[in-house]
Amino acid sequence: MAEFALLNRYLSQLPKDDSVVLGVGDDAAVFQCPAGYQLVQTVDTMVDGVHFDAQFSAADLAYKLVHVNLSDIAAMGAVPRWATVALTLPQADETWLSAFATELRKTCQDNAVNLIGGDTTSGPLTVSLQMTGIVPENQYLTRFNAQIGDLVYVSGYLGDAALALSDKTNQLASSDRSYFDQRLLRPQAQLALGEQLRGLANSCIDVSDGLLADLGHICRQSGVGAELDVEKLPLSDSYKNVFNDAINYDFALNGGDDYQLCFTASKDKVEQIQKLETDTSSKISLIGRIVDATDTDNPISLTLNNTAYQCERVGWQHFAES
Amino acid sequence: MAEFALLNRYLSQLPKDDSVVLGVGDDAAVFQCPAGYQLVQTVDTMVDGVHFDAQFSAADLAYKLVHVNLSDIAAMGAVPRWATVALTLPQADETWLSAFATELRKTCQDNAVNLIGGDTTSGPLTVSLQMTGIVPENQYLTRFNAQIGDLVYVSGYLGDAALALSDKTNQLASSDRSYFDQRLLRPQAQLALGEQLRGLANSCIDVSDGLLADLGHICRQSGVGAELDVEKLPLSDSYKNVFNDAINYDFALNGGDDYQLCFTASKDKVEQIQKLETDTSSKISLIGRIVDATDTDNPISLTLNNTAYQCERVGWQHFAES
Repeated sequence: MAEFALLNRYLSQLPKDDSVVLGVGDDAAVFQCPAGYQLVQTVDTMVDGVHFDAQFSAADLAYKLVHVNLSDIAAMGAVPRWATVALTLPQADETWLSAFATELRKTCQDNAVNLIGGDTTSGPLTVSLQMTGIVPENQYLTRFNAQIGDLVYVSGYLGDAALALSDKTNQLASSDRSYFDQRLLRPQAQLALGEQLRGLANSCIDVSDGLLADLGHICRQSGVGAELDVEKLPLSDSYKNVFNDAINYDFALNGGDDYQLCFTASKDKVEQIQKLETDTSSKISLIGRIVDATDTDNPISLTLNNTAYQCERVGWQHFAES
Repeated sequence: MAEFALLNRYLSQLPKDDSVVLGVGDDAAVFQCPAGYQLVQTVDTMVDGVHFDAQFSAADLAYKLVHVNLSDIAAMGAVPRWATVALTLPQADETWLSAFATELRKTCQDNAVNLIGGDTTSGPLTVSLQMTGIVPENQYLTRFNAQIGDLVYVSGYLGDAALALSDKTNQLASSDRSYFDQRLLRPQAQLALGEQLRGLANSCIDVSDGLLADLGHICRQSGVGAELDVEKLPLSDSYKNVFNDAINYDFALNGGDDYQLCFTASKDKVEQIQKLETDTSSKISLIGRIVDATDTDNPISLTLNNTAYQCERVGWQHFAES
């Protein structure tokens, strides 16, 4: 199979660090975990027509596949180290595969990830990446340790990728459209922030399904509720431009594909967390607080300028599922 | 997504051993590698219509997905420990998913593998499993260390799965047909043998693409050639029955999906390797020897009862690719 040989060539030329004992080219790869660390592992799949479409170039797809996984590693407070890739391709398209493999290699290298294995099969276009990272023993972040009284934070801006997806008819101004496309095609996993949150945050999750869905996971798995101040949600200027005066917050509340971190921390950590904005170059917004669990079906209550806020879900397409 | 919730329920109820710090249900799983061991990682994907068809039940597919990966771990002399699964499913079919998840769980448990993560997406049916094992530091088996003078061995019987695939019109006697189907649908990874080969074998590979293709990898990656005695190939009684007097060896030489181990070891290890037949309950056959590399394009020469043998490739369908 031509793709297999080509992919193998790209993978076998990859630089590897000392942790990789045996890379691509045997029945399996061999690597070494440093003493005092635990392993953190995740897998994410992207399917043609479900998680991406023709708007995505081969390079965009490779970039995003890596960052979607990096984002899970970041949410654990871990450092990404090794990855294997499983590609299902409909035909031998060397141009496509070359662009995909080049960007896969670059994005892994940019994030100090060793690509140590791959499997190529023929079939409907599906790309899956499995990533393993490391974290100092028992210092990983989780979803299930939010404490009542914690403050709720989120990094970056929310809802931009969802706006890009919703604009199927290209009605947005071209400068905004290009900004939104970048947010959809080229999300940036918050690795530096995740690492710095170890020992500071009580809980953490990456926002891939939308803020309410993902903070909902923290609430249910921690047995708590949350109150959010909708006016404090971080919205980009481009987001605000779309709505002029009557801002629709639903893209920020329910839009997927943000790949930001949502986390909770006790009040005495406020200053340390503010300092992280500078240390990690991540925008960090305080958007609410953790409260007693009252309604486990709807653990999150919303206010907009101190008035109860009801969010209407907009019917845009969800690309990411976990 | 209904499948996701269902799969999550199956996965979250899984028993886990002490190595799993955090299982399914967070952004990533956390696990611990014991001191003195390295990690061994592989990934294999099975695509509907390419690697399996309607003959496979959901349970057959789950079983085989695990064993295809176990076989790679076995070929490294490693012990399987953790796995993540990526499922792409065309529709919410609870019956199918329940059967798949039940067998996935059982097959992992039977082999002491902790299922620690999963991703479910919608799309054309594709199942991918990534498996991580452990091996004592630097004792892994590889493809690239075969030595001139080594003897060549293979476990089990060869070619039965390929015969099952070739019999699309069900011409085989029903008792044989049922035997062949089992070999195609329910291969058995040679884990005990792989582990015992550490320190004995100089090289090892799992036979998934056919003996000649896979021993060819050993030859090319070790810079050697091989001579095989075709009459010594291990053929089941059912295989021999198909051909009566004029045995066609091509299914054994080029058929895929055997999931046996092919390995080489120096002559002074003959008795220890014979003893492994009893210790591991694996049939082991001595089928040839490693020689100087003469033709790197065709590193393997064949004789049948001391006469040069030319193998014709039969045009059956290859299901497995790596």
